[in-house]
Amino acid sequence: MTDIEASLIALLDGVGASRDDVSVGIGDDAAVLTVPPDRQLVSCVDALVEGVHYPEGTAAADVGWRALAVNLSDLAAMGAGPCWATLVLSLPEADFEWVTGFAAGFDQLARAHEVALVGGDTVRGAPSVAVQLMGLAPEDGVLLRDGAKPGDDLWVSGSLGDAAAGLAVLQGKLIAPDDAGEALCTRFLRPSPRVALGQALAGVASAALDLSDGLLTDAGRLARASAVGLELTLEAWPLSAALRSAVDRETAFNFAATGGDDYELLFTAQPARRGRIEALAEGQNMSCTRIGTVVDGQTVTCVLESEAWMPSYTAFDHFGPRSGS
Amino acid sequence: MTDIEASLIALLDGVGASRDDVSVGIGDDAAVLTVPPDRQLVSCVDALVEGVHYPEGTAAADVGWRALAVNLSDLAAMGAGPCWATLVLSLPEADFEWVTGFAAGFDQLARAHEVALVGGDTVRGAPSVAVQLMGLAPEDGVLLRDGAKPGDDLWVSGSLGDAAAGLAVLQGKLIAPDDAGEALCTRFLRPSPRVALGQALAGVASAALDLSDGLLTDAGRLARASAVGLELTLEAWPLSAALRSAVDRETAFNFAATGGDDYELLFTAQPARRGRIEALAEGQNMSCTRIGTVVDGQTVTCVLESEAWMPSYTAFDHFGPRSGS
Repeated sequence: MTDIEASLIALLDGVGASRDDVSVGIGDDAAVLTVPPDRQLVSCVDALVEGVHYPEGTAAADVGWRALAVNLSDLAAMGAGPCWATLVLSLPEADFEWVTGFAAGFDQLARAHEVALVGGDTVRGAPSVAVQLMGLAPEDGVLLRDGAKPGDDLWVSGSLGDAAAGLAVLQGKLIAPDDAGEALCTRFLRPSPRVALGQALAGVASAALDLSDGLLTDAGRLARASAVGLELTLEAWPLSAALRSAVDRETAFNFAATGGDDYELLFTAQPARRGRIEALAEGQNMSCTRIGTVVDGQTVTCVLESEAWMPSYTAFDHFGPRSGS
Repeated sequence: MTDIEASLIALLDGVGASRDDVSVGIGDDAAVLTVPPDRQLVSCVDALVEGVHYPEGTAAADVGWRALAVNLSDLAAMGAGPCWATLVLSLPEADFEWVTGFAAGFDQLARAHEVALVGGDTVRGAPSVAVQLMGLAPEDGVLLRDGAKPGDDLWVSGSLGDAAAGLAVLQGKLIAPDDAGEALCTRFLRPSPRVALGQALAGVASAALDLSDGLLTDAGRLARASAVGLELTLEAWPLSAALRSAVDRETAFNFAATGGDDYELLFTAQPARRGRIEALAEGQNMSCTRIGTVVDGQTVTCVLESEAWMPSYTAFDHFGPRSGS
C-alpha cells in the first residue's frame, strides 16, 4: 500500500455504524470481531463495475449506497442481520473527492442498518468496488433457496421492474414523466434492501432469494434449487404507479419479468402462512404480494388472462441488453 | 449475474478445503459458517490488479496462489488461523482456461492451510482479483501492531528482499544466475505466508505486522502504531544466498530495505523471549532473525558498520518505482 492508498483508506475509517463487537477495525492487518455463541456467521460478496453495473457518471454517493445495498439484499435473502463490511475500491487515480462522496453514500445506508466498515483496500485500476458483508443469523434460522414445495405460494416484496426502467431513464433510453422518472431512477440508484423483512421471514418462508437479475432468471434459480416448477400469474404482479405511468402494460410486464436490480425478496411459503406474512409486511409498512404458485415439475411459466405469456425480448432489447448484474 | 458468470463461478465451487464448519458454501445468496464460542472472528481483504501488483502475463495459477497468500499473510500477522475465503474475479472476457488455472493455484494454497472458498463473484472488467479472508483467533489472543516497548527486540522471519529482486527478474530489469533467478521469482510469484509462525507468536510477540510494502515502510507503521522508535542493524539482516549471488551487497540492502512483497512477519518481543522464539522457529524449520531494537522516540534508523545508513533510492529506482502493493 502506498502512502496515497493509506490516505484514501483513512477516508473510510469511521464509516458506518460504531459497534461494540468490533475489537479492531481499519488500521491493523485485519479486523477482529465478536460472534455471539448462539449465532451463525453469514457472508456474501458482490462487486459493481462502472459501465457494467452502473452507468459512467453515476454520483459517487449513489455508488457507495448501491455497493452496500446489493450485499445487504443478499444477507436479507438469507434471513441474516448485517454487521460488518469490508471493501475494495479500484480507481484509475487517487480521487479524494470521489472517495469522500462514495464514503458518504455508503455511510448513510450502513448506519441505517448498523453495519460497521471494518476493512478496506484501495487499488489503482478501472473504476469498480467489491463489498464483502458479514452478518449473523440464529442457529438453524437461515433462509435457503431449496425449501419450496408444490402447493406453496410464491411471494414477492415491493414492486417489480422499477429499477430496470430507472436504468433505462438514466441511459436516456426511456422518457418518463418527471415524478415517475425520478422515482424509477431512485429505485435503481438507491435500492432499499429488505433487511428487516428477510429476518422476519426466517422460519416463515420455505425458500427465498433476492431479485438481482430479473424475476424470471431468479425464479428459475429458486425452482432449480428446490427441484420444483413455478407458475406465475401476471395479473398479480405488483407494478408501481411510476412504472405504469412511464410505459404501457406489456412493456411494464417485460421490465418486471426480465429487468434486473429490483433487490426485492422472492420467497415461497405454505398457504397457511398468508395471514402471518401479510401482518408482518403491514408491520413493516410495505407490501408483499402473492404472484404465483409452486407446482410439480421444473419449469417456470407465466400466465396472463389464462394464456401462456413470454417476455417479448424485442421490446426489452429496445432498452439495450443487460450485461450482467 | 449472467449465465456465463454463473458458469465461471461454478468453476470455483469446491475449490479449497472442505470444512465441517461450512453449512452453506457457494450457490446460495450467502455462505453460512460456524464460529466456535471461544474464538474471535478475524477478517481481512486485499486485492491484486494486473500490471500494478503483478506483471501482465503472470500465469493464472500464480495469480490464484498469490491472491490468497497476501491475505493469509495478513491473518498470520494477527496470529489468527485462516478458515474461509470469498473472492471477486474481474476479467475482460469469460476466459474459462484462465479461471481454471487461477482456481488450481488458489486451491493448492487453500488446501495447504485448510481454507474453504465459500463465496465468489465474477465481473467483466480489467483483470484483477479481490480476496477476503476470515479466520479465527483465541479470545484476547490476537497480535496487534501497537504493543512494542523500548528494549524489545525487533525480529523478522525468513529473508528480506527476495521477492522484489524476483519481480525485477520477471520484468527483465535484473539478470540473475539461473538457479538464483528462479528462486527469487518463486519468492515473488508464490510467497509462503507465515501462518503457523503467526499463530505461535500470539502471546509471545509484543507487536507484529506482515511485510508487504518494504521493510522500512512497514517498520515505520509498526513504530507509529506503538509510538516507539526502531534501530535496525544491517549486518544482521537475513539475505538469502540467491539474493547475494544475484546482486552486490549494497543493492541487496536496498532490495531488503525498500522492496515489497516479502510477506514475512516483522515482530517485536522482550529479550526474555529469545530462546522461545528461536525454539519455535526451529520447530517450524524456518529462521527468525533479530534485526534491531525497539527504542524511545519515533524514528526508524538503520546502522551499517556503526554509521547511519539510508537506502540509495537511485539504485532502487534503477529497477523501477514500486506502484503500490
